[in-house]
This record gives sequence, C-alpha cells and structure tokens, in this order.
Amino acid sequence: MPDAPIVDFHAVVPAGGAGTRLWPLSRAGHPKFLLDLTGTGRTLLQATVDRLLPLTGPGHVLVVTGARHAAAVADQLPELGAEHVLAEPSPRDSMAAIGLAAAVLARRHGPDVVLGSFAADHVITGLPGFEATIRQAVAAARTGAVVTIGIPATEPSTAFGYVQAGEPLGAPGAPSARRALGFTEKPDAQTAAAYLAAGGYSWNAGMFVVRAGVLLEHLAAQLPALHDGLLRIAAAWDTDERDARLADTWPGLTRIAIDHAIAEPVAAAGGVAVVPGTFGWDDVGDFASLGALLGTGDGGPTLGTPDDVLRIDADGSVVATGGRTVTVVGVPDAVVVDTADALLVTTRAHAQQVKAAVDGWRARGRDDLL
Amino acid sequence: MPDAPIVDFHAVVPAGGAGTRLWPLSRAGHPKFLLDLTGTGRTLLQATVDRLLPLTGPGHVLVVTGARHAAAVADQLPELGAEHVLAEPSPRDSMAAIGLAAAVLARRHGPDVVLGSFAADHVITGLPGFEATIRQAVAAARTGAVVTIGIPATEPSTAFGYVQAGEPLGAPGAPSARRALGFTEKPDAQTAAAYLAAGGYSWNAGMFVVRAGVLLEHLAAQLPALHDGLLRIAAAWDTDERDARLADTWPGLTRIAIDHAIAEPVAAAGGVAVVPGTFGWDDVGDFASLGALLGTGDGGPTLGTPDDVLRIDADGSVVATGGRTVTVVGVPDAVVVDTADALLVTTRAHAQQVKAAVDGWRARGRDDLL
Repeated sequence: MPDAPIVDFHAVVPAGGAGTRLWPLSRAGHPKFLLDLTGTGRTLLQATVDRLLPLTGPGHVLVVTGARHAAAVADQLPELGAEHVLAEPSPRDSMAAIGLAAAVLARRHGPDVVLGSFAADHVITGLPGFEATIRQAVAAARTGAVVTIGIPATEPSTAFGYVQAGEPLGAPGAPSARRALGFTEKPDAQTAAAYLAAGGYSWNAGMFVVRAGVLLEHLAAQLPALHDGLLRIAAAWDTDERDARLADTWPGLTRIAIDHAIAEPVAAAGGVAVVPGTFGWDDVGDFASLGALLGTGDGGPTLGTPDDVLRIDADGSVVATGGRTVTVVGVPDAVVVDTADALLVTTRAHAQQVKAAVDGWRARGRDDLL
Repeated sequence: MPDAPIVDFHAVVPAGGAGTRLWPLSRAGHPKFLLDLTGTGRTLLQATVDRLLPLTGPGHVLVVTGARHAAAVADQLPELGAEHVLAEPSPRDSMAAIGLAAAVLARRHGPDVVLGSFAADHVITGLPGFEATIRQAVAAARTGAVVTIGIPATEPSTAFGYVQAGEPLGAPGAPSARRALGFTEKPDAQTAAAYLAAGGYSWNAGMFVVRAGVLLEHLAAQLPALHDGLLRIAAAWDTDERDARLADTWPGLTRIAIDHAIAEPVAAAGGVAVVPGTFGWDDVGDFASLGALLGTGDGGPTLGTPDDVLRIDADGSVVATGGRTVTVVGVPDAVVVDTADALLVTTRAHAQQVKAAVDGWRARGRDDLL
C-alpha cells in the first residue's frame, strides 16, 4: 500500500443473507459471502476484508455474522483473530448487527472512532478509486455526518435503491461529499429513467461511514430500546457475561434495516452525506449479474473449469461447472449451475425468479437442498 | 397371445447406430437400443424382441449387432440363445446385416421362410394393430413381394423418408397391401406438405418383410459380390470356419443401406408392396421426439425420477434425471439431460443439433464422452 491506514478507522462487515437468487451455488448453510464467485481463489468475504485491511490497518476489521457461520468465517479469515468475529445468536437484521459492532468499538476504542460498514458479498473493482472514496467518506464522517456511498447510475436500474445528492458538504478532505437529500427504494422503470435523466441520483451501495458515537446517538433518538439493549450486550461483550447478556437481551431486539432505522430519518433531518463511489461495484444479486461479472473469456462466462464447457450457438450462456462436462446447444442466454445434489437451468432473463426455486423445494420438504 | 405365431416367420433385428442425437444418454459404447427410454423397465431392444416373439414363436428372432455390443445384447436378451445373436466384426450398414441374417436363415430353414426386419430402437404402441399389420405383410411377402410398412402421415414431416402406394396388391390375407410406386428421401417442407395434400404417401418405417430366398435373389441381381460374400460367410456360420470366413470376407463387403440396395430398385421394377401400419410408431430420433413420447405426466416429460424435478414456468421441459435434483426456471421447451460425466442443456427446437455436441467433444479429444 502506498498510503498509510486511516487513523481511528474501523471496518464492520455484516456477513449475512443467504443469497437465494444464487441458489444452488449459495445455500443457507453455505451462503454467498463464503463463495468464490469471481474465480480468483478468494471468497467474496475474503476479498472484502482484503480490500479493507490496508485502509484500516491490522486489527481494525470486525465481521458480524450468524452463530451458524462464525466457524466458517473464522476459518476463512485466520488473520482477524477471534475477538474480531462477532457471532449473533439469531438474525436481527442490519441495524442490530452494525449497532452491536458500533457499541463494541465505542467501548474498546472510544466513541470518536469512525466505522465503515461494508457488505460481505459485493464485488468491487478499481481499488485506488475505492480507497480514495473511503478516505473522503471518513473525512466527511469526522464532521458528524452519517456518510453513504452513491454509485453513479449508468442505466435506469430497478434493482437498486437510490440516494439523491444536494449541495456540497464542504467538509475538509472530502471535496466530493454532498448533503444527501433522501433515499428511495428500488423504483419502477419509469421512475428509474426519470432519476437518470434528472441527474443527482446515484445507487445506494449500502455502505455507511459514521463515528461510532454519532451512530449510537442517532440510534438512541430513533430506537431507544434497541440502543439500550445493544449497549447492555456490548458492555458484557469482552467479559464472562457475554453469553448471559446475549441470552437475555438479543432475542428481544427490534429487527430493522439500518436504512430504515437511521439513514432515512437522519437524511430527512439533514444529517446524511453522500460521497460518489469512483470504483466498480456489483452486488452480484443474481446469475445475470454474475454472468456480466464473469465476462466472456474462454467462449463465455464460466465459473469453474472452462475446458469442461462446450457452447454451440450459446456463446453468452452462463455456466458454473461442478466437476463434469456441460454442453449448451442453442441457448445463448442460458444459466446452468451444476452442483453435487442440485442442477439449475434457467436464463439470464429469469435470474430474479431463482428465488422461487428455493421456495419450491422448501414446499416439497427438501430442506436438504436449501 | 390370443393368436398362434406365424408359421415359417423369422424376425431380424439389426441393432446398430449410436443415436448421436440422443447424446449423452446414448453413447458409442452404450447406444440408444440398449437404453430404457420409455421408463417401462425394458430397453428399446428388449421391447422390440418382446413384441416380435409372440409373432415368430420362440427361437425365431435373430439380432444382428456389432461385436462391441454382442455381449450387452446377449445379456439383455437371455431368452434368445447365443446362436440368435449374430456379431458383425465391423459396421457394414444395413444391407450386409440383414443380408447376412437372410443367408443364415435360408441355410438353417430354407429359402421360403419369411423374414421381417425391424429396427432395434423404435418405439411402437398399439400391439394388436402391429400384429395385424405384420400378419398382412407376411401374407403379402409369400407372393414374392418385398413388403414395407408405411406409417400414415399425420403431418408434413421432413424427418422421414416416404413411400408412395399404388393399386391394391390383391394378395390373399393382405387386403390392405398395395403396390409401392417408389420411395423418396426426407423431403423439404414444401414437398412434405404436397405429399400430405396428395394422399397416398406414408412414412417409411424402415421395416421390410420378404422371403429369405427372394431377398437373396434381388441381392444377387443388384450386388452380386455382396451376395456371394454373404453366402460364403453364411455357409460357414454354424461351423468352425465362421471366424475365418468373417476375417477374410467381411472387411470387403459393400457398405450400403438396404433401402438403396434393394427397396428402391426393386420398387422401380414393381416388386415392392406397402402395408399401412395400424399402430403408433416413433423412431425416437431426438430429444424433441423423446419429449413427445414421455408425455406430460407429473408436471412434464421426465425420464428417471419425477420427484427430483422442479419446473417453474417450464412445464413442458424435457428432463432426464441422473440421480440429482434438476430445477428448470422459465424455459418451457428446455431439454436437460443429466448423466454422470456429461450434462446437456438445449431446447426442443435445437434437438437435431445435438449431434454437433458429439462432434464438438470429439474435436476436443474427449473421446471418453462419446
């Protein structure tokens, strides 16, 4: 790394979500973030931590994950150390996960440290741009803002939420930061086209950078019971009382996404800033997205062994091999995913419908496949 | 069986052809006729012999196959006995196969026995109609005609050759038999439509019924060298000289289909009759044909385990399972064939192109898959 780590900066990586649209690669017991979907030899979680550690310095990355996956996470990230993997007894959505991390960090390092929250299952390209963006976001966060990253929209996508940028924030070291006027949920096609035409809207990449104390203050104002519960747990985290506090407090925590809990109400009050992301970003939300990510080397987008794939009039078909040969004839937009117990055949256009396959097998009682 | 076997009638079943359009179910080492493609528990070869034995009586079915498949054939048909499986050292096309059988039968039983040749890899439904048809064909053959079976055309198919029927033959016991005016190869769509509109054309099912001596006389007239070679081998067949004669004579035999060698020239001379087939006939030529044959029970055409298949917006997709689950989303005309080492994904519309997959893997040196 040419640059030194950012002082007093900690990354929080919530590692949750099954990624059912990537079934059968992604399973409940082996979710998307544990997979190498880019063929680089590193899983999405590992790549996420790889890109954050140079920015935070060693010991400043916390992963928050479900108890079910804590061992796999620790196994994939031996460099982190046990105290940097927070295991949730049960899923309580992103506000509890990030709030817990903020409360633990505030106790360990004080409320003025800045935390950045980054999903464990996104793919990012252009690391210098990523680092420059995060440095600006941290600078903006030091002024007390909740800072989000907005990915400049390149098409009228209906797959992402949007954030609208207003006047420049004027924070030192963050020349690109602007006040966030508000967030919107995934729009319909017409609205998305209007956003693109209007300018000033960008995709909400789901990254938040904020001082730990500021986050907790907003949480105390918006959801005091959740705030108090998280602080009670955090106070016990590095003691013998952790399990007891988790047992008596965690199950009662409010399930809510950080977007609804903090970002939206605080933006309405003028407390959110947005920094444009000058890097490539992909949430790998489905197989169409994975296909675009894999590119067309070796005759078509392949995850696994290109030599095992034969495409005839099917150049763009997306294939994930599973140790056998795969032949696709005449279906250029096919998606073929081969695993030991489950084979999926669909098309890029139906990528969002893959979730229904998981529902279908569940309805048949085939939980072994989920 | 309500009716007694037909006196002096022998069935010949040429069992050859890889069936590359059914790859990867069908392989060079495990061809189509050895497969159970109907889910009945009997292979196409077994079902062929099952339907012939009641007509011929025991001991009157001969299978002619390649040396490579003789053991598998004998294994599938223990009721036949070794002297009823003729093994060819190398493929010499259908005239040599059926001619050899005719020559062996003529030596064993005399030239007046009637032989009927039936492919080992077709599917036939409506057995009473099949039996009635064959009884008429045998009756017509006793008059000295080469008799073929014409399947009444129900659509302007371009997948089959056609036979045109003329005036009634007037043979005793064969009221439906007519003189065959001639054969045509697989026509283009316009010609096929014209045939259907004109009437009198039917699909050539590739079945021939003829007295052994008549067949050999035609062969002697048309291809005397082939005739003489086959007689030389047949004379040695049931002796210690068989292997020697095969070794010195078989490799030099002319490769030609019986249609070109006998049916076409003899039809032109007025020596061929056609009996309409009053039964269901399918040559299972490709996966589209297989899909139609399997029907739509259990949610869609399935070969294997219907419980292992989940179709979402893909009701008509054709699936051959291979011990794992198969999920098809949004591809109603998909064809998915799952085997241990090769997975094929295509559509019914591309069924004829599957042959190209075999060529493709051969070009890559993957003979293990063929």
